[in-house]
Amino acid sequence: MSLLPIRADLLPFLEDYLPPREAPTPDVKPFVTLTYAQSLDSRISKGRGQRTVISHFETKTMTHYLRYHHDGILVGAGTALADNPGLNCQWSPEDTIPNAKCSPRPIIIDPRCTWHYEGSKMQRLQLQGSGKPPIVVVKKKPPQSKITDSKVVYFEAPLNSNKHFDWLALVRALKREFGINSIMVEGGAVVINELLARPDVVDSLIVTIGATYLGEQGVGVSPPSGEVTLTYVDWWKGTLDSVMAARLLRRA
Amino acid sequence: MSLLPIRADLLPFLEDYLPPREAPTPDVKPFVTLTYAQSLDSRISKGRGQRTVISHFETKTMTHYLRYHHDGILVGAGTALADNPGLNCQWSPEDTIPNAKCSPRPIIIDPRCTWHYEGSKMQRLQLQGSGKPPIVVVKKKPPQSKITDSKVVYFEAPLNSNKHFDWLALVRALKREFGINSIMVEGGAVVINELLARPDVVDSLIVTIGATYLGEQGVGVSPPSGEVTLTYVDWWKGTLDSVMAARLLRRA
Ligand SMILES: NC(=O)c1ccc[n+]([C@@H]2O[C@H](COP(=O)([O-])OP(=O)(O)OC[C@H]3O[C@@H](n4cnc5c(N)ncnc54)[C@H](OP(=O)(O)O)[C@@H]3O)[C@@H](O)[C@H]2O)c1
Ligand SMILES: NC(=O)c1ccc[n+]([C@@H]2O[C@H](COP(=O)([O-])OP(=O)(O)OC[C@H]3O[C@@H](n4cnc5c(N)ncnc54)[C@H](OP(=O)(O)O)[C@@H]3O)[C@@H](O)[C@H]2O)c1
Repeated sequence: MSLLPIRADLLPFLEDYLPPREAPTPDVKPFVTLTYAQSLDSRISKGRGQRTVISHFETKTMTHYLRYHHDGILVGAGTALADNPGLNCQWSPEDTIPNAKCSPRPIIIDPRCTWHYEGSKMQRLQLQGSGKPPIVVVKKKPPQSKITDSKVVYFEAPLNSNKHFDWLALVRALKREFGINSIMVEGGAVVINELLARPDVVDSLIVTIGATYLGEQGVGVSPPSGEVTLTYVDWWKGTLDSVMAARLLRRA
Repeated sequence: MSLLPIRADLLPFLEDYLPPREAPTPDVKPFVTLTYAQSLDSRISKGRGQRTVISHFETKTMTHYLRYHHDGILVGAGTALADNPGLNCQWSPEDTIPNAKCSPRPIIIDPRCTWHYEGSKMQRLQLQGSGKPPIVVVKKKPPQSKITDSKVVYFEAPLNSNKHFDWLALVRALKREFGINSIMVEGGAVVINELLARPDVVDSLIVTIGATYLGEQGVGVSPPSGEVTLTYVDWWKGTLDSVMAARLLRRA
């Protein structure tokens, strides 16, 4: 299904929250944008495994516009398993056609190798020439005999003291190893909740709020680490949704 | 502390969500507006008993503007106990001074008589001539000997099968007994969560969203009854907050 054209007033609104256009400096970490769509009651889906439409088509176009401006698109294994997402980019400037080259590189955070590329929508898009093959971030690479599609790259990332990947080390490694200078993080709840507490990692936050309630049983976003203060806040008013853009405040 | 002037563009935005200006019809239930301020992660306070500033001063003015347009202002005992709220109206049209007459009648939902008027901010405002005395909705009136301020009215309301007050019967009774033709409901979480599931009671929903996260430990709003669909949705964009106004969709 084709996208609605992008709303003209979204472009100046988003401009200050996009990765810099200048050539990236080697020693600087990649630019990280954290973005997701939620209901008023801060649910990002009705339940794990229940793909949920929260936002209007016009904000779907925004998502693809944002993907166009990033080198990598990152989701957790929970999302890859629940939603079978394509993670390609279907938007491009007027005089061009969207293709695999415009699409960001998918990055799946899958510590225990639970997700499979084989048969996924991501693989289908890649075979059609409209998406890139993913980098799967794992604790330990699967044996060569288990890898059925040689286009997938498995990457062993450094762990922190909680035996989780350390986000800062991870994004730096993605830049160093794969030349990824900007990463758009799309979810799900575990990933978002961790990153909301990381102003040292996240450069932009873009949240779409749909005018609906999904209810207590939905998958919720709310940082377990407590309060998060935002700065450089701006809002865009859509037809049915609002979008908030901001940066996370770094503590002194 | 005096209020900021009301933002001019709030007035046309709110107009369609206010109680009707015509003389009320006796057999129609009072007009009910459900309104509250939440963080992005749908928390209305940092924790019970922790009064929390969520919204900008300009949306505080909106709250008082809304109070001006309602006959009653309703909160649960949880809010009355935690926040000691004044519940008067500090806004009035330019050529007048706010006073008790402009203020709505406080209505406290206090089934087990846990809250005390004596010594409250509400009593102080009433004594100063800038607020009205409350109606306390209870399961059983306290004995006359325990009532220290004769201005408080205790009202025994009908219960439903869950031994909670039935909202529709309650608002009808408030109109019949006290001539209250419009009620603004300000919280807290228990009251909001119940009323989000009552399109037969709530006529307008006005939610302020502050650009902050309060974290998982905060008091959250999310209907236990599941999805709530909204209609007639509109958004207002403030300096730091957004406000959404809507109606609850009645199921066929
Ligand atoms: N509305 C939206 O914008 C949106 C976007 C995306 C997803 N979603 C929804 O979100 C839901 C999925 O969310 P979810 O919370 O279940 O899954 P998730 O956040 O996508 O993925 C969770 C998985 O990622 C791993 N993980 C996350 N951070 C890690 C780290 N630092 N180190 C190591 N592993 C890490 C966890 O590993 P361990 O369990 O091994 O610790 C867990 O297996 C789905 O319902 C989906 O529809 C909504
Ligand atoms: N940000 C905002 O806009 C805002 C506004 C107001 C309050 N708040 C915050 O909300 C918190 C308080 O919320 P809360 O959930 O604790 O309290 P609450 O909703 O104010 O009050 C709960 C009480 O009301 C009673 N109640 C509610 N519905 C009832 C019904 N239908 N029938 C009988 N009793 C009913 C409950 O009785 P039982 O327990 O006996 O069942 C309970 O005692 C505070 O932290 C306050 O700061 C925030």
